Amino acid sequence: MTADDNAATADRIRESFDRQGFMHTLGAVLESVESGTVTITCGFHDALTQQHGLFHGGVVASLVDVACGYAALSVMPADREVLTVEFKVHFLKPAKTDCVIAVGTVVQAGRTLTVCEGSVFDASRTRVLARMTATMMAVDAIFS
Amino acid sequence: MTADDNAATADRIRESFDRQGFMHTLGAVLESVESGTVTITCGFHDALTQQHGLFHGGVVASLVDVACGYAALSVMPADREVLTVEFKVHFLKPAKTDCVIAVGTVVQAGRTLTVCEGSVFDASRTRVLARMTATMMAVDAIFS
Amino acid sequence: MTADDNAATADRIRESFDRQGFMHTLGAVLESVESGTVTITCGFHDALTQQHGLFHGGVVASLVDVACGYAALSVMPADREVLTVEFKVHFLKPAKTDCVIAVGTVVQAGRTLTVCEGSVFDASRTRVLARMTATMMAVDAIFS
Amino acid sequence: MTADDNAATADRIRESFDRQGFMHTLGAVLESVESGTVTITCGFHDALTQQHGLFHGGVVASLVDVACGYAALSVMPADREVLTVEFKVHFLKPAKTDCVIAVGTVVQAGRTLTVCEGSVFDASRTRVLARMTATMMAVDAIFS
Repeated sequence: MTADDNAATADRIRESFDRQGFMHTLGAVLESVESGTVTITCGFHDALTQQHGLFHGGVVASLVDVACGYAALSVMPADREVLTVEFKVHFLKPAKTDCVIAVGTVVQAGRTLTVCEGSVFDASRTRVLARMTATMMAVDAIFS
Repeated sequence: MTADDNAATADRIRESFDRQGFMHTLGAVLESVESGTVTITCGFHDALTQQHGLFHGGVVASLVDVACGYAALSVMPADREVLTVEFKVHFLKPAKTDCVIAVGTVVQAGRTLTVCEGSVFDASRTRVLARMTATMMAVDAIFS
Repeated sequence: MTADDNAATADRIRESFDRQGFMHTLGAVLESVESGTVTITCGFHDALTQQHGLFHGGVVASLVDVACGYAALSVMPADREVLTVEFKVHFLKPAKTDCVIAVGTVVQAGRTLTVCEGSVFDASRTRVLARMTATMMAVDAIFS
Repeated sequence: MTADDNAATADRIRESFDRQGFMHTLGAVLESVESGTVTITCGFHDALTQQHGLFHGGVVASLVDVACGYAALSVMPADREVLTVEFKVHFLKPAKTDCVIAVGTVVQAGRTLTVCEGSVFDASRTRVLARMTATMMAVDAIFS
């Protein structure tokens, strides 16, 4: 891929991300898009908590699902969209941090299916709070 | 369990649910609590969408995770809390509906671990949009 | 589907099952094939044990994976093969029984992907020992 | 841990592995035990095949489940046993190789639960054929 292709892919992913009402609701930020790896960050807010005032597991899972989905999209042709078929997430540590950083990475890219793995870090970017594996499916971009 | 025990358990779960900032953010409603089964509903809103204007998969997953967690808690002793160890969710159909209904059910209850399964229905309560399996862990209620 | 179609599908699945060296090794028996549901049984043997002399979890998982795969194949056109993309299995109870019965069922059938769920029962056919969810993929039958 | 402790742990795992009738049936070999990482290898044989003559997915899953289980056991106190609560496995490439190499690694060790991840490689030890995530549970060694 050329640098121009990469820039076009990153633009396409940013536009798609911006259309997600739920990412606005979370206050999520698309930090970086590289070929096969996408990073999303999200600052702590009372609106995102579970019953003990920490980041809700559903927030953590949502962020890393989106990171994995766009990581998959970053290696697909420009006329494709991506759907999450399924994901599994392990919650490894309580998400007690000012900011979570969700990184999605492509493990295996196919014409139809792409398998991704994701990690969620705390603000220090060293402690792993959660791990995800996901199956993503390429579909025709019929919606846009 | 007596009817009094069941009512106390339902109260305990309602109080915990009300402390979840994220459930308020979603506009989620704890519809019913029975022993081993919990139902949560959530009306559609633009703040909950993915890039094509449907319910976000992360919202769907969050709702049924919480339903499974409280289903597990509903069969635990009163001095216990519940943590999600892991879950897997399959997205079966696009969540194109005015309201999603998430039902979590206990499949196997143990002293430490409880395995739950969840379904997410559309507003008609007949079409299954997503399916979850989850491992829940009982911990001492040290936070409260 | 006509009764003839169903019979042809069942024959096709039986031939495929018989080509699996590993199913012979396990002593697995293809008990029944219906549209969307396949049942496989396997009697206990010392060659199938874990360290405490019970059925090995890997045996249990293998049987229900195959049951799910053929359940998916049972609803696909005749020129298709099936691959397991991924599965998750929960081991609910120790597999202490003379015979395990693995039942795979189609939950959602698509052109490319089929989602299945499976249960493994003990010889009484009432106790659930394990639960599986699986993503199956249709591919062209290029091998045969 | 001292070198003596490590040697005692490795011995304990080898004895447990040798008691698994199913590992004998597969022809599996416990290649190495380190603290938090266990490697098992298994040569190809017609008795281990799926319908196209490649390694069966169930064999692949069984090997890496055992590798993950013993990886978890390798970081537990000497009076504990390990059970697989659940695992998920993604099959990334057809297992067309003379030998599969399954490596299980501890990702997060707790008093009760240990989360592991596993990879299955082909004989070259470079191509990843499958990936697993698993939840392992420590139990009292009541059986021995």
